[in-house]
Amino acid sequence: MVNVLVNGIGAIGKRVAVAVRKQDDMILIGISDIAPTFILRTLTEPGADLYGVDVYCSGEGFIKNFEEGGFYVKGTLKELLKSGKVDVVVDCTPEGIEKNNKPMYEETGVKVVYQGGADAEITDMSFSPFVNYEKAIGKKSARVVSCNTTSIIRTVNIIDEMFSIKEATVSLVRRAVDPWNHKKGPINSIEPVTTVPSHHGPDVNTVMKNLNIKTMAVKVPTTLAHVHMVHVKTEKYADRNRVIEIFSKHPRIKLLKASQGYESTAQVMERYRDTKMRGDMMDVMIWEESINTEGENIYWMHAVHSESIVIPETIDAIRAISGIEKNSAKSVEKTDKSLGIFRE
Amino acid sequence: MVNVLVNGIGAIGKRVAVAVRKQDDMILIGISDIAPTFILRTLTEPGADLYGVDVYCSGEGFIKNFEEGGFYVKGTLKELLKSGKVDVVVDCTPEGIEKNNKPMYEETGVKVVYQGGADAEITDMSFSPFVNYEKAIGKKSARVVSCNTTSIIRTVNIIDEMFSIKEATVSLVRRAVDPWNHKKGPINSIEPVTTVPSHHGPDVNTVMKNLNIKTMAVKVPTTLAHVHMVHVKTEKYADRNRVIEIFSKHPRIKLLKASQGYESTAQVMERYRDTKMRGDMMDVMIWEESINTEGENIYWMHAVHSESIVIPETIDAIRAISGIEKNSAKSVEKTDKSLGIFRE
Amino acid sequence: MVNVLVNGIGAIGKRVAVAVRKQDDMILIGISDIAPTFILRTLTEPGADLYGVDVYCSGEGFIKNFEEGGFYVKGTLKELLKSGKVDVVVDCTPEGIEKNNKPMYEETGVKVVYQGGADAEITDMSFSPFVNYEKAIGKKSARVVSCNTTSIIRTVNIIDEMFSIKEATVSLVRRAVDPWNHKKGPINSIEPVTTVPSHHGPDVNTVMKNLNIKTMAVKVPTTLAHVHMVHVKTEKYADRNRVIEIFSKHPRIKLLKASQGYESTAQVMERYRDTKMRGDMMDVMIWEESINTEGENIYWMHAVHSESIVIPETIDAIRAISGIEKNSAKSVEKTDKSLGIFRE
Amino acid sequence: MVNVLVNGIGAIGKRVAVAVRKQDDMILIGISDIAPTFILRTLTEPGADLYGVDVYCSGEGFIKNFEEGGFYVKGTLKELLKSGKVDVVVDCTPEGIEKNNKPMYEETGVKVVYQGGADAEITDMSFSPFVNYEKAIGKKSARVVSCNTTSIIRTVNIIDEMFSIKEATVSLVRRAVDPWNHKKGPINSIEPVTTVPSHHGPDVNTVMKNLNIKTMAVKVPTTLAHVHMVHVKTEKYADRNRVIEIFSKHPRIKLLKASQGYESTAQVMERYRDTKMRGDMMDVMIWEESINTEGENIYWMHAVHSESIVIPETIDAIRAISGIEKNSAKSVEKTDKSLGIFRE
Repeated sequence: MVNVLVNGIGAIGKRVAVAVRKQDDMILIGISDIAPTFILRTLTEPGADLYGVDVYCSGEGFIKNFEEGGFYVKGTLKELLKSGKVDVVVDCTPEGIEKNNKPMYEETGVKVVYQGGADAEITDMSFSPFVNYEKAIGKKSARVVSCNTTSIIRTVNIIDEMFSIKEATVSLVRRAVDPWNHKKGPINSIEPVTTVPSHHGPDVNTVMKNLNIKTMAVKVPTTLAHVHMVHVKTEKYADRNRVIEIFSKHPRIKLLKASQGYESTAQVMERYRDTKMRGDMMDVMIWEESINTEGENIYWMHAVHSESIVIPETIDAIRAISGIEKNSAKSVEKTDKSLGIFRE
Repeated sequence: MVNVLVNGIGAIGKRVAVAVRKQDDMILIGISDIAPTFILRTLTEPGADLYGVDVYCSGEGFIKNFEEGGFYVKGTLKELLKSGKVDVVVDCTPEGIEKNNKPMYEETGVKVVYQGGADAEITDMSFSPFVNYEKAIGKKSARVVSCNTTSIIRTVNIIDEMFSIKEATVSLVRRAVDPWNHKKGPINSIEPVTTVPSHHGPDVNTVMKNLNIKTMAVKVPTTLAHVHMVHVKTEKYADRNRVIEIFSKHPRIKLLKASQGYESTAQVMERYRDTKMRGDMMDVMIWEESINTEGENIYWMHAVHSESIVIPETIDAIRAISGIEKNSAKSVEKTDKSLGIFRE
Repeated sequence: MVNVLVNGIGAIGKRVAVAVRKQDDMILIGISDIAPTFILRTLTEPGADLYGVDVYCSGEGFIKNFEEGGFYVKGTLKELLKSGKVDVVVDCTPEGIEKNNKPMYEETGVKVVYQGGADAEITDMSFSPFVNYEKAIGKKSARVVSCNTTSIIRTVNIIDEMFSIKEATVSLVRRAVDPWNHKKGPINSIEPVTTVPSHHGPDVNTVMKNLNIKTMAVKVPTTLAHVHMVHVKTEKYADRNRVIEIFSKHPRIKLLKASQGYESTAQVMERYRDTKMRGDMMDVMIWEESINTEGENIYWMHAVHSESIVIPETIDAIRAISGIEKNSAKSVEKTDKSLGIFRE
Repeated sequence: MVNVLVNGIGAIGKRVAVAVRKQDDMILIGISDIAPTFILRTLTEPGADLYGVDVYCSGEGFIKNFEEGGFYVKGTLKELLKSGKVDVVVDCTPEGIEKNNKPMYEETGVKVVYQGGADAEITDMSFSPFVNYEKAIGKKSARVVSCNTTSIIRTVNIIDEMFSIKEATVSLVRRAVDPWNHKKGPINSIEPVTTVPSHHGPDVNTVMKNLNIKTMAVKVPTTLAHVHMVHVKTEKYADRNRVIEIFSKHPRIKLLKASQGYESTAQVMERYRDTKMRGDMMDVMIWEESINTEGENIYWMHAVHSESIVIPETIDAIRAISGIEKNSAKSVEKTDKSLGIFRE
């Protein structure tokens, strides 16, 4: 049994906490944040998924936020960590905050799973269960790469293993913000990442060290999901049907057909609304028709649910660094079964 | 036990079918449509909410759609209706189609619940459990009014009962389409209903016959929810706290505070994503801060989930016309408990 | 001749500066800002509308912004004001900044036109040429009310003059940001102003002191224009045709018909793209079909171009406080002719 | 002098008509359409850009549309063409209609410029002044390729000429509809072109026959402009500064810097609102920061104004097929000067 605390209950944190609660080899010891946000209130209401979980204040200075909001907290995160009751913290605080938390984690000796928003330098272990699970076993910390990077690693890594990739080029069309965020735009424009290639390629390289990959990215006015346009060149020539077969068998890839009505991210995400709580699409969804091969070239387009795709990898990371499961495939299977991600 | 068939498995139909399955006094005999849409495919997948339900083809001419799509149907709707196995059909077909279906329903003697998209003239019984449940008992058909109208009736009727409304003016800001629809706009503009007052007022009057109500409406680029700005004048002067209390006690009204982070429909709908399957907000959500009174005037603003608000009223309508429950309050309580709408 | 400087070259400031340049009784002495924004760069390019105009730095501390941006400024605003060369400053700085500027203006004795973003308290003269032009003559400062308020005053005031308004209720559906702003949302939600009635009503009352008006407002994901749904009750009963006639004759109101294709703000704004530089709609545009009367009630819906509607009123305000034109109607006519707003 | 008629007064047609009027070697004989749309009404108002131009009805069957709309037409298009008064028709009718018009054009012997919406097969001459002007001289018809294709040809062709392209991959992020269209979506989703590679590559090949190009495309919820992410591999290695220099000198390419505030299509298009009527961006705008080179690879990102980018190429096409100008560079210079597209 691993005792887990989730620090930062936003889009990712709340999902990690709910997912931890579904594991039979983990205990959710508590959750922590700096204020009684609407998310915290919603999730701890009677009947909600985190009802009854102990809530801690992430820092002493923030206690007054909870007092003013009339929201009970059991204590501060630091006190809890010092008590030795926590084995692993999953840090889901906003980008940049994890750096401030790191000393507290190191001081109290707790193990940490960081999220992809964190700088790669925060740990020497950027993690994917499909690439380097074994290396992460027993580490003090690991970093689950971002939603975009996770989707690229899942799909590109399996192609690399089968056909040896010479060069990968990915064009990312990013959802601008999560659905619950009404503050940020753009409302009616396209915002390029004018640093070309973008940082996503180097982020993939923190896991797949030797992959020759270049990325470009834009942000567009949608909240549902990212879409990637992928072009890879391989040493061994691939056959379209073989590529489809390989993707079909991957535990965290799902193929859907536009011809069956999944014409845009609207219908794709509606499928998950109808079948998973929160409408979470933890698979990478590839449009089957978009998969094409021509000589050394393979093309495809996939959709990425920014809010939930990293959740299964995060659960795997907890298993790896805590050392309760030594086998990557077994962790993936256990995670996917508990979260309802399975091949049909 | 009432045997129910749902005809038309779109945004409303799929939810009605799932809701019927949760009732202990109803049996979902089948569902029917004209083609194997992505919605039908999604919901009948193994593990999905309508898995195992018999699917019928709504018309003989459409059998080939299912054959070409490789989707098994048990037979045609007409055959099923003729067999006498169905007590109540809930017609959730797109606006205008219900007229074509009516002769088939009348011919086979089945009872029918129509949806608000249908013309009011399709039946003499436009229905709300809070206004005219008793009149609907045993009727051949009833029409559950539209999402916008349902929200107005729930909120305005209770105010009318308590304070006697002299005049109501509602300005509707409508979500343009449901989230799964990527075909329709507007993307970046506001479309007025230039017929002023709009048809929504008269639609309220099909249920609340004597209410003096005028409505105006625009359509805006969002998929999440409608927002209404309501202004009523009452005979008896209302106190703000009393209005809040009355709304709080209504079984299908929920108050949320912007000050607690529910600042827009984004956070409001996120709350329901976190607590209800499909993110369904079957309550009318009123922003508590927006409730205000000045002399004879009461003001408030509420949000309406177009996809799901009519589901509980539809279940009540089935009970009323089938006659299995004679008491309005009991039906509402039964429905709400089964669907997880409850006062905390 | 009045020497005018425009401080703050954003959406409003750039338009005011261009408009001042078109007046034969005003000279644009200069423009000022705190940094070489893209707007400043665009407008001062060779051939652009403010090419050749002297640019000043609004504050000494900001000189380095211009130096680093390689953008020439002639000096600081304060020096210029001290020189006595400026008669009137139009302060178009962002909301809240005008307060900081006020002491500089008072110290140097320059007259000031503030914009509607400023608190009403910044001056005792909130201005509309249709209501209180004469009172503004010779004042040290005046405040041109906001875009929403300007549109309400134009339309409601003329109805009040003709039919005596007892009560006005306006529901505002606001564009979220201007088209050039990609930072702010909401992308897919509706944000209510949960303070009901909203501040817009009291803002109207800074000009029309005795009008009984209540407003409610939401913000929606569009950049083009606001839409208002208006309901007024009048002492004298109005005839629909008479209302149409009155609106038609107003110099700054335009009627368009949805039946001729102006179905949404998309087509309405396209009309102005095709006929005015920047697509500026300086009129209030009322959908003719939406105008309706029933007994004491008058209803209509109008669209408001947030970026440009206050420009003509701002030019009038310069004339009024500088005293170069004593007659309101003459100022309006002069302004409208110079800006190309005319009755056809 | 070439007598020109523009058939189909939509987003493209109206701009072509206005542009023709600005040429000193062309006469706009008339415009034609099938109904008095809001666009036709707007542009023919007193003072508007097509005021005074003769309007024709595109087909006899549509005369009643104009009669019912109270809009005067001088006659039918066919009669006019038979009269021999028209040298060149520019067909800007909606996609698919041009096929129906072709027999009429052939029968009456008029020359025709088709738009990119038309199938490439409608003529053997797909046209770009930068590639094949000379071949088009005297042809009976030519087709100006689509907005996306035009932008690719302008940028990719000059790179090909300088560095010999081995392979080009373009990922297109398309604006969903033009700003005046409120009917179509998507509102909050991304729609892929699941045929990969997309049709845009082959369309480029109708002009640049031997270019090895592959394209992928998605549609996103914006109305302003397309954005392309381009990756080319060249025989001769390019230096970044040299690429910037080459692009800078192209008559119809404009470089802007995100660092100067042009961070998204919002600011880019605002620049053109401030400097060109209708906000038309007839240049391809490349973000300077996005231009990068690595060995054989060149990367960049550009924005494409779907409504206006093809206008200058259309004017060139009229010159080419009518034969009034034999020199490509001279036509381009003449066009650009008349339309205000010039290097600063």
